[in-house]
Amino acid sequence: MAPQRRIDVVLDSVKRLLRIGATANLLNLLQKQHPADLAQVFGSLLDNERQAVFSILVERSGRLAMETVSEMGPEEGAKLLTGRSAEEIAKLLQEIPSDDAAALIDYLPEELSAEVLELMRRRESGQVESLLEYGEQTAGRIMNPQVFALSEDLTVGEAITALQSSRDVEMVFYLYVVDGRRHLVGVTSLRRLLLVSPETPLKRIMTPEVTSVRVDTDQEEVARQVASYNLLAVPVVDEENKLVGIVTVDDVIDVIKDEASEDLLRLAGVSGDERIATPAGESLRKRLPWLAINLGTAFVAASVVALFEGTIQQVTALAIFMPIVAGMGGNAATQTLTVIVRALALGELSWETARKALMKEAVVGLGNGVVLGIVAAGIAWIFKGEPMLGMLLGMAMIVNMFVAATAGTLVPLGLKAMKIDPALASSVFITTFTDVVGFASFLGLATVFLRYLVKVQ
Amino acid sequence: MAPQRRIDVVLDSVKRLLRIGATANLLNLLQKQHPADLAQVFGSLLDNERQAVFSILVERSGRLAMETVSEMGPEEGAKLLTGRSAEEIAKLLQEIPSDDAAALIDYLPEELSAEVLELMRRRESGQVESLLEYGEQTAGRIMNPQVFALSEDLTVGEAITALQSSRDVEMVFYLYVVDGRRHLVGVTSLRRLLLVSPETPLKRIMTPEVTSVRVDTDQEEVARQVASYNLLAVPVVDEENKLVGIVTVDDVIDVIKDEASEDLLRLAGVSGDERIATPAGESLRKRLPWLAINLGTAFVAASVVALFEGTIQQVTALAIFMPIVAGMGGNAATQTLTVIVRALALGELSWETARKALMKEAVVGLGNGVVLGIVAAGIAWIFKGEPMLGMLLGMAMIVNMFVAATAGTLVPLGLKAMKIDPALASSVFITTFTDVVGFASFLGLATVFLRYLVKVQ
Repeated sequence: MAPQRRIDVVLDSVKRLLRIGATANLLNLLQKQHPADLAQVFGSLLDNERQAVFSILVERSGRLAMETVSEMGPEEGAKLLTGRSAEEIAKLLQEIPSDDAAALIDYLPEELSAEVLELMRRRESGQVESLLEYGEQTAGRIMNPQVFALSEDLTVGEAITALQSSRDVEMVFYLYVVDGRRHLVGVTSLRRLLLVSPETPLKRIMTPEVTSVRVDTDQEEVARQVASYNLLAVPVVDEENKLVGIVTVDDVIDVIKDEASEDLLRLAGVSGDERIATPAGESLRKRLPWLAINLGTAFVAASVVALFEGTIQQVTALAIFMPIVAGMGGNAATQTLTVIVRALALGELSWETARKALMKEAVVGLGNGVVLGIVAAGIAWIFKGEPMLGMLLGMAMIVNMFVAATAGTLVPLGLKAMKIDPALASSVFITTFTDVVGFASFLGLATVFLRYLVKVQ
Repeated sequence: MAPQRRIDVVLDSVKRLLRIGATANLLNLLQKQHPADLAQVFGSLLDNERQAVFSILVERSGRLAMETVSEMGPEEGAKLLTGRSAEEIAKLLQEIPSDDAAALIDYLPEELSAEVLELMRRRESGQVESLLEYGEQTAGRIMNPQVFALSEDLTVGEAITALQSSRDVEMVFYLYVVDGRRHLVGVTSLRRLLLVSPETPLKRIMTPEVTSVRVDTDQEEVARQVASYNLLAVPVVDEENKLVGIVTVDDVIDVIKDEASEDLLRLAGVSGDERIATPAGESLRKRLPWLAINLGTAFVAASVVALFEGTIQQVTALAIFMPIVAGMGGNAATQTLTVIVRALALGELSWETARKALMKEAVVGLGNGVVLGIVAAGIAWIFKGEPMLGMLLGMAMIVNMFVAATAGTLVPLGLKAMKIDPALASSVFITTFTDVVGFASFLGLATVFLRYLVKVQ
C-alpha cells in the first residue's frame, strides 16, 4: 500500500476507535506504528481528538508517545504537552534524546519551561539545560551530547569490547578517538576494526584528520559540510577542541528542509517559521507588518502615478496599460531574484560568478523585454488603433524589464554583502521598485510625447 | 579558517599557479583537496581555466578528476567532459559509482552518449545502461546497484569474514540479508554482529521487517521515507522483491535540495531545473513562455480597466489608487500561496487540515484587509482631501485581500487534487487574478458611487 494511503487508513481507524471508546484496540493499533507515521496521524486529528489519543498513548507507552511528539516538531509537540503538569513533562522528557527535549522545552510557555528545567536539573539532566545555553541555530543547539568516543590508548580488541557493552548510543558508525582530556584526535570505523588483529593499537588505524564543527558553528554551515562531504555525522567540539556532541545526518536533513522553507517563505514576505498550523491570530500578527510596509511602498508607487495625473487626464488610455508595464517588470524581477537567492542559499555564488550572473540576467531581462515589448506594442496598437501608444508601451516595458533583472540580481547580492538574509529582498519590495520604474518610464515617456498622443485621441 | 574563506584562498592559488604555468605545484595543491571543495573551486573558474585545470588533473589522477566532476552535478559535469573522445570518457567513467556515471551520461550530447554507452557495454558496464532504463526521478535511477548483501544461510562468523574480504562497497552500515534467489528477507547491523557468538545463524539475529522501496518509486517518496524514518539508506527491490540496489542518505539530501529548489523556482515562474550557470540563451528561452502567458493575463487585467475607462475619465484620481488595491491583493495572495505550497511539499496537508487552513487563511485575509483597508482609506482621504475616495479604496482592499487569501489556498489545493504540481500555481497567475478582482472591485464601486465622487472633484 502506498505510504500516504496507509496513513489515511490508520487515521480513519484511530478516529473510529476513539469515537466508540475502544481504547484497547486503539492502543494496539498505535503501538504498531512508527513514531514518524503517528506524528502524521496526529497532525491530521482535530485538537480535542489529538489530546485524547495522546492521553491514552502516554499512559501505556511514554516512550512511543514522546517519540511521536518529537517527530511532530518542537512547536506542535510543545503544544501537546502544555496542558500537563511540570512533573509529568519532566518525567516524559527523559524518554527522548536531550537535543529533542531541549527543543521542546524551548517552545513551552516561559513559566512552565522554567519549572520543568528546575525539576530536570534536580534529577539528572544538566545536559538539557546546557544545550539550551548555546545560541539558536548553532551546532551546539542541535547536537546530541551523548557521543560515543574511544580513548586513543585502547587496542582494537578493547575498543570492540567497549562497543559491545555500550548501549543506547545514537547510531555508532564513526568511532571518534579522544585523548586523556577528551580532545578529539582521530576517527575510525567499525568496519576498520574488523579488518585488523585485536592487539593493534587504535592509534595505528585511526585517521588523524577529522572534519569537525564547533558548538557555535551555524547550523546551515553544519548542514553544508555534512552534505558536501557526504558524511553520516559530524563531531562537535568546544573552543578547546574537546568532543562534546555529535550532529547526525537526520538532524541535518531537518535543517536543510527548514532552511529551504525559510527562504521560500521569506521571499513571499512571510516569517520563516510560519507553518500551516500557526493559529490565525499569530499569522495575522506576523504577516501584517510586511503588508503594512508594502502599503507604504505602494503609496510611493501611487505618488509616482500622481505626478502624471495631468497626462492621464488627457489620455485616459494610459491608465489601462500602465499595470501591464509594472506587472511584467515585477514578474521578471521575481524570476531573477529567485534564481539568485537560491544560488546564494546553495553556496553556488562567489564574487566571480556574481559578475557573470549580473551580465547574464541583464541580457535575459533585455531580451525578454524586447520580445514581449514588441508583442505588447502590437496588441496595444490593435486594441486602441493607435501606434504611438503601442510604441510607448513597448519602450517602457523594455526599460522596466531590463531594470528589473538588474535590480533582481543586485539587491540580494547587496544584502548578502551587508550580511542580511538575501531572501528578505522579498518579491514584496522588488515588486514595488518595478512598479515605480514602470509607472515612471511609461507615464514619463507619455508626457514627453503627449502632443502626438493627444492628436490621435 | 572558515570553509568558504578557505575555498577562496585555494581558488586564488589555482588561478595564479595556472597563469604562471606551475603545473607541478598546481597538481600538488589540487590533490590535497576534497572533491566537494574542488567542485566549488571549479564552479568559480572561468570556462577556459576550468578546462585547463581539469586537463592537468585528469592526467595525474583520473579518479579525483572524476569525483570532482560528480560533485559538480551531472549537468555541469557533463559539459566538462563533452570536449573529450568517447574512448576517454568511457574509461574515466569507470572511476566513479555507476549511478553517478549514469547521471553524467544522461547529460552528454546524444551521439556522444550513445558512443560512450556502446564502449562501456563492450567492457563491463551493463550496470550503467540498466540504470538508465529506469524512469527519471525514480529510485532505480538514483540507486547504487553495488549493494552488499549476505545470504541468510550464513553464520555470524561467516558474515564477518565476507565483510572483511569485500572492498569498495558504498557505506556498509545496514547489512541486508537475502535468500538463495536474492529476495530481500531481512536486515541486521555490523554492531549486532559483534554482540553475538560467531556460530549464531544470521537468520536468528536479523530483523525480518525491512523498509524498502521499489525501482519505480518516485525519488521524492524515497526521500520522504529516509527522512521520516531517520534511515541512513534504503534498499531498492524489483517487482519480485529481489534486492537490486541501495539509495543512501547522501543521495537523498541531493533529492531534498533539488525538490526544494524546484518549488521555489516554479512559484516564481522559473523552470525547476534552471540554475545560476544556465546560459543566457537557455534562460531566456525557458522564462519567455511564462512571461508571455503572463502578458496575456496582464491584458485580461487591462481590459477590466478598459471597461471602466469612462469612469477614470471623469475621476482621474482613481488611476492613482488602483495599483494599490491590485498590489496589496497580490502580496496577500503570494503569502498564502507560499505557506500552502510549502505545506503540501512537506506532506503536512490532509483534506481535514486543508479545510481548517482555508478557514484560517480567509480569516487572516479579511483581518489584514480590514486593518490595512482602514489605514489606506485614511491616507487617501488626507492625500486627496476626499473621504468618499478613501472609503472606496478601503472597501475594495478588504474585498480583494479576502478573495486573494481564499484563492491562494484553493488554487494550489485544486491543482494538487488534479495531480498537477501546486507550485505551478505560481505567483505569476495568482497575481493576475488579484489584479482583475482588485481593478473590478475598486473601479466597479467607483462607477456605482460615481456621482458622489464627481461632485467633490
